[in-house]
Amino acid sequence: MTIKIFTTGGTFDKIYFDANSEFHIGEPIAPALLEEANVAFDYEIESLLKKDSLDMDDADRSRIHASVETDSSNKILIIHGTDSMIDSARYLLDIPHKTIVLFGSMQPARMRRSDAMYNLGVATAAVQLLPAGVYLAMNGQILDPRKARKNHRLGKFETTDT
Amino acid sequence: MTIKIFTTGGTFDKIYFDANSEFHIGEPIAPALLEEANVAFDYEIESLLKKDSLDMDDADRSRIHASVETDSSNKILIIHGTDSMIDSARYLLDIPHKTIVLFGSMQPARMRRSDAMYNLGVATAAVQLLPAGVYLAMNGQILDPRKARKNHRLGKFETTDT
Amino acid sequence: MTIKIFTTGGTFDKIYFDANSEFHIGEPIAPALLEEANVAFDYEIESLLKKDSLDMDDADRSRIHASVETDSSNKILIIHGTDSMIDSARYLLDIPHKTIVLFGSMQPARMRRSDAMYNLGVATAAVQLLPAGVYLAMNGQILDPRKARKNHRLGKFETTDT
Amino acid sequence: MTIKIFTTGGTFDKIYFDANSEFHIGEPIAPALLEEANVAFDYEIESLLKKDSLDMDDADRSRIHASVETDSSNKILIIHGTDSMIDSARYLLDIPHKTIVLFGSMQPARMRRSDAMYNLGVATAAVQLLPAGVYLAMNGQILDPRKARKNHRLGKFETTDT
Repeated sequence: MTIKIFTTGGTFDKIYFDANSEFHIGEPIAPALLEEANVAFDYEIESLLKKDSLDMDDADRSRIHASVETDSSNKILIIHGTDSMIDSARYLLDIPHKTIVLFGSMQPARMRRSDAMYNLGVATAAVQLLPAGVYLAMNGQILDPRKARKNHRLGKFETTDT
Repeated sequence: MTIKIFTTGGTFDKIYFDANSEFHIGEPIAPALLEEANVAFDYEIESLLKKDSLDMDDADRSRIHASVETDSSNKILIIHGTDSMIDSARYLLDIPHKTIVLFGSMQPARMRRSDAMYNLGVATAAVQLLPAGVYLAMNGQILDPRKARKNHRLGKFETTDT
Repeated sequence: MTIKIFTTGGTFDKIYFDANSEFHIGEPIAPALLEEANVAFDYEIESLLKKDSLDMDDADRSRIHASVETDSSNKILIIHGTDSMIDSARYLLDIPHKTIVLFGSMQPARMRRSDAMYNLGVATAAVQLLPAGVYLAMNGQILDPRKARKNHRLGKFETTDT
Repeated sequence: MTIKIFTTGGTFDKIYFDANSEFHIGEPIAPALLEEANVAFDYEIESLLKKDSLDMDDADRSRIHASVETDSSNKILIIHGTDSMIDSARYLLDIPHKTIVLFGSMQPARMRRSDAMYNLGVATAAVQLLPAGVYLAMNGQILDPRKARKNHRLGKFETTDT
């Protein structure tokens, strides 16, 4: 079993860019994190996009959809900005026979304190243990994207009442 | 649902102690890691032991067994040194109706580079998703303690060929 | 001897703020860094401003000038954004009898990789060893603000030819 | 001006070595720290020894002495374990025409929290600013090795009352 990891940008991969004193999307940090995590499973990483989550449009989501659908692995992780992660997750709901887990982080992985490494851990367990379907892995929870929202005030994802 | 976390020491909690230029088991770092991880689930942490895994004896394992068995939660995480983690896991196999996940780290959580935060992520997903039983969460894998060993040369846990 | 440390904001104190996916100036991190550095000298820290260096105006510089001039210590450190650090340094050149060292960082102190802690070390040595005057401590160099510039392309401060 | 940096081991370079669950002296981390510090001066790094400070003997000190004396640079940094740093510093007192600064750290540079990067900053400023002689740079202080001691209880260096 090989786990396929698609990176699309988002806070997870942000760096501080001095030239304009702002954060930018940097190179994917997932390879460095997985090496630090000392993992024993096989994986492939592919950088699909380097976008802030709010800048994603339907063309981007179509591209992600096609990449996931045609990939030879049926265990798929997607690193994604948190602001439109739920939209992208819903866009993938029609893909059969694959376990798809989206996650990101509230703090860039390159900060001294960040939820990125932890979320990577939750997501890699979820993608191995769950049946086919689309899931979010944020804040130590595994959520159904049809019943989830980002609570901006708390800085956490939560299940909607319904 | 409240996840109960028992800490027992091990590499996970090691600090560098200048007075004798060696490591020691420090205070449990799990509370700080869970805050950094920005988790949304309820948990309780209890420090049972502060031991190097190789120093654990049957009295220690009895104590862990009793604590797990009588705890009101049926989702149990145990942070444990890696060298005798498998022995302790097997000692708990007779406990019914609880999902019990043991994990630790190869590098102390207080190192700049460590697998501790990642393993915490894997373990918290596993304890939520798996049925009752005893499991190990190391190196991004979920293992059955009856068929696992620590490969000291590779610094990784692996499944035995039974 | 007590070293007085004035903080004014800048990259040094930046945090990543999820609500708008941008950096902000956070609380001064100098107290945490000095504790981590295990220093043995006496110091006082005072937060004067929380500004991006490019937003500083003459009113701000007057305020810094007054604070430095009237402070009871004659060893002064100023943590300052890098883009207008030289301007602020020149503004202080008329203050007699005090050793004044300005520094900041190219990467926020809260990043995993940052020059902040190192620059703090260079600056605290410089303020103890140098005679009265105004100095910059950046990139491991001690510079005269009348003959220094920030090389934006290299991301480093350098001495001007003259 | 090129600063020459000799590494000799000590806590500064310690790693956690899982095979025997202890700390060991690892490869010199100074090159990585200087890159992270974004320094602009020229330097050369040479690994002389990889020893715990308490294991150093006169043969080691002779070797350090010879290396410093014959080096073409007259600005010398020595990264050294803290327990016998003062002895090694005194051994070098007869070397003329060179500014020699010894430093180390109480916590390994590879820990999340360490005084290593800060001490490197203090030392590199001291070696540039001080006249010929031998100095210690620890805890934000520049000390004369003939009048210094390590206070083990406080974990800090201090001046003796002679």
